Amino acid sequence: MDITVAIDCMGGDHGPHVTVPSAIDYLRHDPEANIILVGIPDVIEAELRAAKAELSPRLRLHSANEVVGMDESPALALRWKKNSSMRVSLNLVKTGEAQACISAGNTGALLAISRFVLKTIPGVDRPALAVILPTIAGHTYVLDLGANVDCTAEHLFQFGIMGASLVSSVEDKPSPSVGLLNVGEEEIKGNEVVKQAAELLRQSGLNFYGNVEGNDIYKGTTDVVVCDGFVGNITLKTSEGLAQMLATYLREEFKRNWLTRLAGVVAMPVINSFKHRVDHRRYNGASLLGLRGIVIKSHGSADNYAFGFAIKRAADEVRGGMLRRISERVSELSHHSQTSAQAVTR
Amino acid sequence: MDITVAIDCMGGDHGPHVTVPSAIDYLRHDPEANIILVGIPDVIEAELRAAKAELSPRLRLHSANEVVGMDESPALALRWKKNSSMRVSLNLVKTGEAQACISAGNTGALLAISRFVLKTIPGVDRPALAVILPTIAGHTYVLDLGANVDCTAEHLFQFGIMGASLVSSVEDKPSPSVGLLNVGEEEIKGNEVVKQAAELLRQSGLNFYGNVEGNDIYKGTTDVVVCDGFVGNITLKTSEGLAQMLATYLREEFKRNWLTRLAGVVAMPVINSFKHRVDHRRYNGASLLGLRGIVIKSHGSADNYAFGFAIKRAADEVRGGMLRRISERVSELSHHSQTSAQAVTR
Repeated sequence: MDITVAIDCMGGDHGPHVTVPSAIDYLRHDPEANIILVGIPDVIEAELRAAKAELSPRLRLHSANEVVGMDESPALALRWKKNSSMRVSLNLVKTGEAQACISAGNTGALLAISRFVLKTIPGVDRPALAVILPTIAGHTYVLDLGANVDCTAEHLFQFGIMGASLVSSVEDKPSPSVGLLNVGEEEIKGNEVVKQAAELLRQSGLNFYGNVEGNDIYKGTTDVVVCDGFVGNITLKTSEGLAQMLATYLREEFKRNWLTRLAGVVAMPVINSFKHRVDHRRYNGASLLGLRGIVIKSHGSADNYAFGFAIKRAADEVRGGMLRRISERVSELSHHSQTSAQAVTR
Repeated sequence: MDITVAIDCMGGDHGPHVTVPSAIDYLRHDPEANIILVGIPDVIEAELRAAKAELSPRLRLHSANEVVGMDESPALALRWKKNSSMRVSLNLVKTGEAQACISAGNTGALLAISRFVLKTIPGVDRPALAVILPTIAGHTYVLDLGANVDCTAEHLFQFGIMGASLVSSVEDKPSPSVGLLNVGEEEIKGNEVVKQAAELLRQSGLNFYGNVEGNDIYKGTTDVVVCDGFVGNITLKTSEGLAQMLATYLREEFKRNWLTRLAGVVAMPVINSFKHRVDHRRYNGASLLGLRGIVIKSHGSADNYAFGFAIKRAADEVRGGMLRRISERVSELSHHSQTSAQAVTR
């Protein structure tokens, strides 16, 4: 299936130095993909020359002369930078010239501008950021990861619908299981919002597994894990911190003396293969769900390899008909949910 | 300093089979400690015989003929099991016969019964559960870990006071730094409760570091990390899940073929030393803070080794004058906080 994605080439810690070579690499592996490089022409052309690549019908350039800074206020970026590479990329999705857009830029600005430019799908109150995480069994999708810090039960319910739609569009799973992140001790059954969300999910047509606990994420108990953005952001960052700590400890242990260094040399292939398995770059690319267009947020520090996974994610969502699936499910379930919401709050 | 701790011998997945031998071991290493074993005499005496140990002035037995089941309703246990080993242990703290109590039993029941028997310290609305976690730099204390799923800003502020008091009583840190767990992206400044709590903490006399993110926990950015029990429980369980997943991956990689198995044999001492460093048993023993008595919750699945750390934690808190420190700090800061709370909500 022929697709076109727009890349905000200026975003991220490394800008075009990563985004342009990564786009060139991607086209080699996906012969039916087309890419529009969006950003400052001179800079992009310099990167193309450095990579010994040329523009072509499959690799076009779209000029955008402003750049949203990584620490810039999202509100100001939204208001004043109407010709930023980020906004122009989103406009290309809006006009249909591209079916998806990828940015490694300022997360807050991307959330604000994409919502303004693309608008939400009818029935979706708030877009949510979904990431994919490795599990013992395979992988799982978790949302929201920081787009919404205060959520109602209805929002969590919508996240469930969107997460399930995402999974059924990019994986061969017609009815993905959805878990609601909660505290597990029997005596503590979660806060009020989560309890109501569970009720809404239970009454929906979704394949609702029920409450899941923190350890269920990496166990891979369900295909989708739903939580608010506050819990999601903290959970994800805690995981990053723990992984870094364990990596530091392991490195220190192997560096303790000449014997352990020798053991390190012998164990190197195993450690490398372990590292590859947990390499967070392979999970790069968070999906911004609930908008009338496909938007992928790459990690700001992504390198070529990592950015390629974000492009692939965008392509997979386009080919899987993610937007159509979300719209259908939301309209199918939203009447139902309104009725249930009334029943729950009554 | 001569101290006496009461042990709920019947609690936990393994009951007296773990608690009794662990108590005997502990007394060998701490010559100024006395232990009261609380539970069903026949069962405890059988374990003493199996361990070739005898009762003595330092190791006494206090009969309690009921046991709170691990899955029993806390409300029912509170109401009907007035002679449970858990409740009798707490009574010994109340009457002053023991200065601390340790239980590996039903968490919810321990929270409910200890609050009923011991009551909270004046100025503390809700007890909180604090755990110690390893960090790159050393370790950090995190609370609340599940005692309170819905918290106000004032509760989080009190957790900060209690956490700081705990650290200054068991470590050589007169003014421990306190961080408030929050989402870090600039555009998302946390939910309303957290924002108000930050204000209260900022205006208090505590050494308030400011907001910290999930990855700061394992970085060891602050001595204390404060969060509500919902976030705390999920964060802790997610960490457990991630650690298990990584351990599984590493094991699988070493078992891939004969060459990797050989590498595993060579790397064994390094891996074991790594495992020792992250051994969760060494961090066993959560402190239930804010009560008029010292209560330590051991993990239900604790073995002898792990349970010993919970006993040590109780002894350290008694010797460090934890209760006095919390009371002093709470009364010192509570007037201040009331004034600030009014200022914040105004």
